[in-house]
Amino acid sequence: MAEYRAPVRDIQFALYDVLDAEQHYARIGASEASRDLIDAIISEGGKFAQEVLSPLNQSGDQIGCKFDNGVVTTPPGFKEAYQQYVEGGWPSLAGNPDYGGQGLPESLSVALNEMVSTANWAWGMYPGLSHGAKLTLEAYGTEEQKQTYLSKLVSGEWTGTMCLTEPHCGTDLGLLKTKAEPQADGSYRISGTKIFISAGEHDMAPNIVHIVLARLPDAPGGTKGISLFVVPKLDAESMEPNNVNCGSIEHKMGIHGNATAVLNFDEARGFLIGPENEGLRCMFTFMNFARLGTALQGQAAAELSYQGALAYARDRLAMRALSGPVAPEKPADPIIVHPDVRRMLLTQRVIAEGGRAMIYYCAQMGDVLHAANSTEEDKEEAEAIMSVLTPIAKAFLTETGLEAANHGVQVFGGHGYIQEWGMEQIVRDTRISTLYEGTTGIQALDLIGRKVLADRGTMLRFWTRIIHRFCRDNENKKMQEFIRPLRSHYREWGSFTRKVGMKAMKNRDEVGAAAYDYLMYAGYVSLAYFWAKIADAAYTSLDQGTEDPDYYQGKIKTARFYYKKLLPRAKLHKEVMLNGGKTLFDFSDQDF
Amino acid sequence: MAEYRAPVRDIQFALYDVLDAEQHYARIGASEASRDLIDAIISEGGKFAQEVLSPLNQSGDQIGCKFDNGVVTTPPGFKEAYQQYVEGGWPSLAGNPDYGGQGLPESLSVALNEMVSTANWAWGMYPGLSHGAKLTLEAYGTEEQKQTYLSKLVSGEWTGTMCLTEPHCGTDLGLLKTKAEPQADGSYRISGTKIFISAGEHDMAPNIVHIVLARLPDAPGGTKGISLFVVPKLDAESMEPNNVNCGSIEHKMGIHGNATAVLNFDEARGFLIGPENEGLRCMFTFMNFARLGTALQGQAAAELSYQGALAYARDRLAMRALSGPVAPEKPADPIIVHPDVRRMLLTQRVIAEGGRAMIYYCAQMGDVLHAANSTEEDKEEAEAIMSVLTPIAKAFLTETGLEAANHGVQVFGGHGYIQEWGMEQIVRDTRISTLYEGTTGIQALDLIGRKVLADRGTMLRFWTRIIHRFCRDNENKKMQEFIRPLRSHYREWGSFTRKVGMKAMKNRDEVGAAAYDYLMYAGYVSLAYFWAKIADAAYTSLDQGTEDPDYYQGKIKTARFYYKKLLPRAKLHKEVMLNGGKTLFDFSDQDF
Repeated sequence: MAEYRAPVRDIQFALYDVLDAEQHYARIGASEASRDLIDAIISEGGKFAQEVLSPLNQSGDQIGCKFDNGVVTTPPGFKEAYQQYVEGGWPSLAGNPDYGGQGLPESLSVALNEMVSTANWAWGMYPGLSHGAKLTLEAYGTEEQKQTYLSKLVSGEWTGTMCLTEPHCGTDLGLLKTKAEPQADGSYRISGTKIFISAGEHDMAPNIVHIVLARLPDAPGGTKGISLFVVPKLDAESMEPNNVNCGSIEHKMGIHGNATAVLNFDEARGFLIGPENEGLRCMFTFMNFARLGTALQGQAAAELSYQGALAYARDRLAMRALSGPVAPEKPADPIIVHPDVRRMLLTQRVIAEGGRAMIYYCAQMGDVLHAANSTEEDKEEAEAIMSVLTPIAKAFLTETGLEAANHGVQVFGGHGYIQEWGMEQIVRDTRISTLYEGTTGIQALDLIGRKVLADRGTMLRFWTRIIHRFCRDNENKKMQEFIRPLRSHYREWGSFTRKVGMKAMKNRDEVGAAAYDYLMYAGYVSLAYFWAKIADAAYTSLDQGTEDPDYYQGKIKTARFYYKKLLPRAKLHKEVMLNGGKTLFDFSDQDF
Repeated sequence: MAEYRAPVRDIQFALYDVLDAEQHYARIGASEASRDLIDAIISEGGKFAQEVLSPLNQSGDQIGCKFDNGVVTTPPGFKEAYQQYVEGGWPSLAGNPDYGGQGLPESLSVALNEMVSTANWAWGMYPGLSHGAKLTLEAYGTEEQKQTYLSKLVSGEWTGTMCLTEPHCGTDLGLLKTKAEPQADGSYRISGTKIFISAGEHDMAPNIVHIVLARLPDAPGGTKGISLFVVPKLDAESMEPNNVNCGSIEHKMGIHGNATAVLNFDEARGFLIGPENEGLRCMFTFMNFARLGTALQGQAAAELSYQGALAYARDRLAMRALSGPVAPEKPADPIIVHPDVRRMLLTQRVIAEGGRAMIYYCAQMGDVLHAANSTEEDKEEAEAIMSVLTPIAKAFLTETGLEAANHGVQVFGGHGYIQEWGMEQIVRDTRISTLYEGTTGIQALDLIGRKVLADRGTMLRFWTRIIHRFCRDNENKKMQEFIRPLRSHYREWGSFTRKVGMKAMKNRDEVGAAAYDYLMYAGYVSLAYFWAKIADAAYTSLDQGTEDPDYYQGKIKTARFYYKKLLPRAKLHKEVMLNGGKTLFDFSDQDF
């Protein structure tokens, strides 16, 4: 099976060298996030991930969650691991101190989540889902709601969910039917069926706090008539059942250790959060965070699959290098000598390490956005960059993460297809990442439609300005191989965006036709920025003198691989996009 | 679940309109393959596939094969379906009449296999595996061996396997260890362990004929010391067990309905087939056929997934078309109106339909190669084209077939991840196709190394000459949009092949570094040829007047989609390939 080793050094490199974490935390006034503390979190969190969660990953997949008459039993060990997690104080890391949290910056919990989730994605979803509920309550809950529910979520004593999807609607929430009837005591009776509720029912915590989208009796149709409610599984005071019943759990391709529940709300008692009919708007304020969590799944798949494939490629013997034996003392060379195996390994690696930098950077922007001492200018920039980068990270890293996971299977040859090696599980687990929290197509529309065109490129320019400044400041001989292509890409990005905008004015469907390729282009170019940053950070360490030059040389060589072997895909997406949508629109229904 | 509908009309279109099947069969002297007979095979075979096999596809996946103390039980219904298949005379379709076959051209059995295998890939592997055993015995067996084993395989009474892989070697068969000890009576005692033996043990037929690779006592090391043996599960005469024991079956990502067996040969009685120590060479003579069978899996996945996704896209309602409501009477538009959904559907379709033409064409080349009345020139051309196109079809169609299957999941959104819809099963089943019968990397090396560079491009030129002639003969206004890009691609294909050859002379590893991209380039350009052929055939029908112009217009529109949206990928692969292997070789082991 694929055993996870927390990549402590790579995480430190990303934080300190690539993303100047110390400076970042100083800037946002998070003086408690010292290097010692961060190191302790990474080291202890890593230990927990690899010693407690990783060993439950394969058995969790094979045994899965069991459903019996409304009761869900999680795989053996899951519950105990969760208890340990809660006792270790991990859920409260970035929680609000007013409700029992440790008040550390959110970006630190992202580094922790990376390790937890890479070791065992299905398990990590239980605390992960609580996060969305926490953010909702924190932003829109009343003081009483916060005292009642938020404090339990922060401690991890209870877990949370987000109940959006219904059988007939997922993407198009405007169609949702769940009803909320106001009661005399100020509460509501919630009735309806929600599906695909991750961590919707389980035995890991005594209570579950559901955040539910529903309609008030006279609500307008569509997305403007949706309100948010908090609906506990058990009444918070009496701990009596609240008419929220799990009808079944789904049989899925992967993440078998996480219960994907059908929840029937049958006049369950709930409480309004935030203003009436503004539920969707409220949700969107923290949608970025949920999407960033899913982006992590692509990165995690690449990392775990890379670890497995690298070990196997060093061990498995087959054929000789075409240029002559590399290990003549053995019956054949280890397959890592073969260029095609290296191509796959390095493709995994650029997604894992570049993706990490991208996600951590987004999380830093989140820190800035929420820090008390950020200026309005800082916040504006951070929000713009987050708005643009989040759909990119979510869709691009899950698409390429799935590719990376498939490379891991491929490196193993036939053995990759066999369950015991654990490589195919990574593919099955991560396959959902391009689907939930908004499919790739939806992210792509969000990026090009809402974030770029509707905004006339203003937010996008905040992001390309970052790339521009980096190129300007690193105009030196060593970095030229990265700076030149990076510059030409971010420049053309702006210019073809205008072209697509012009087309869209004539035919709105051109936006939809361009969306996927536009997003993938944005992904490859944004990742190129992070790989240039990585190379720059590595050069800095080499210039300062280091006892381990190989480590940093390896980063620079990997950046080169990215620029020569993956970045050219940006050009492909540009060409396909500029070929326009005519071949798509020309199909009448009977042509299919 | 994904219900299969045999695409009878599309198969007829591919055969008669695109590939001139009637003319082809006349040319090879197969007068018995009349249009009436072909139509009957497609129609009856299609009925069997959709009525008998398709309903067993999902249950076969969910129940899988059971192993109990050496005995394998196939999923419910599999055995009965096989009896029906045998009683229907299907296994003997292209069999040698001397041993009970119907003597029809092999290419017709490929059309049948497409339907059988698309409906239920795991089931189709049982008769499919027999095919390799049949070809081996037919080519190299003694008359007695043919009477004993081949006739039973032709009738389908027994099934066959190919036993190549061992725990420590799959790709690198030179490392294999299974031993064959000669006995006084001319037989051999075979001892060793074989793994990954598809259809290696089951309850569908009373006996299994294993074709086994093993070493004679004084055989040279490596690939030059391997011989071929026929080793029945039960002695052919006494029907007593022959010390071939199934140790276990693998737990796999997919194809759960097919038993992937570990077989222990413990002094099993076997018989030499063909000359001593030339087993690998003998195997390679029909490797093309096995690989074509696997290419079919990619095409089949695309077809089945397309059928499922298309039906869903017409049915599922979400959002409005950006250009305005298409179905204003409904609460939302069917998702087929969205350009990104169309992009995915059409990508599936170009692989399914274009892949069909490619595979059928390869099969026709196989017919020519084996037809008694083919000239030496015909045979030389057919063999060259098959040699070049087979690794392309195998690797390219399985890679793109997997992509297509993933698009099918994606069109379903979250529902695609749920087992009951059947879409994720297609991904899991087809995931093996890029692994077995030689991984994509091995096919790529076969193409660029053995088929192109070692041969100085001679075989390749046979293939590009076909494209050249087609371009020359279809230089007209209507076809220009296809002919121009097709011509520029096949021309540059030749020229950059020389460049890669030059690089390879300096560093042999450059061959391995270029291989994957070279193959994918070849795939996209070869598929472009078939899509141009399809467009040409459609224009011919339109010009002749047809009652159903939509059908043919749909083909032309799909060809346009291919040229605008997929063919640009060829350029990407060229660029990445020409960027060379330096970034791959520069990695020392510690850099990883």
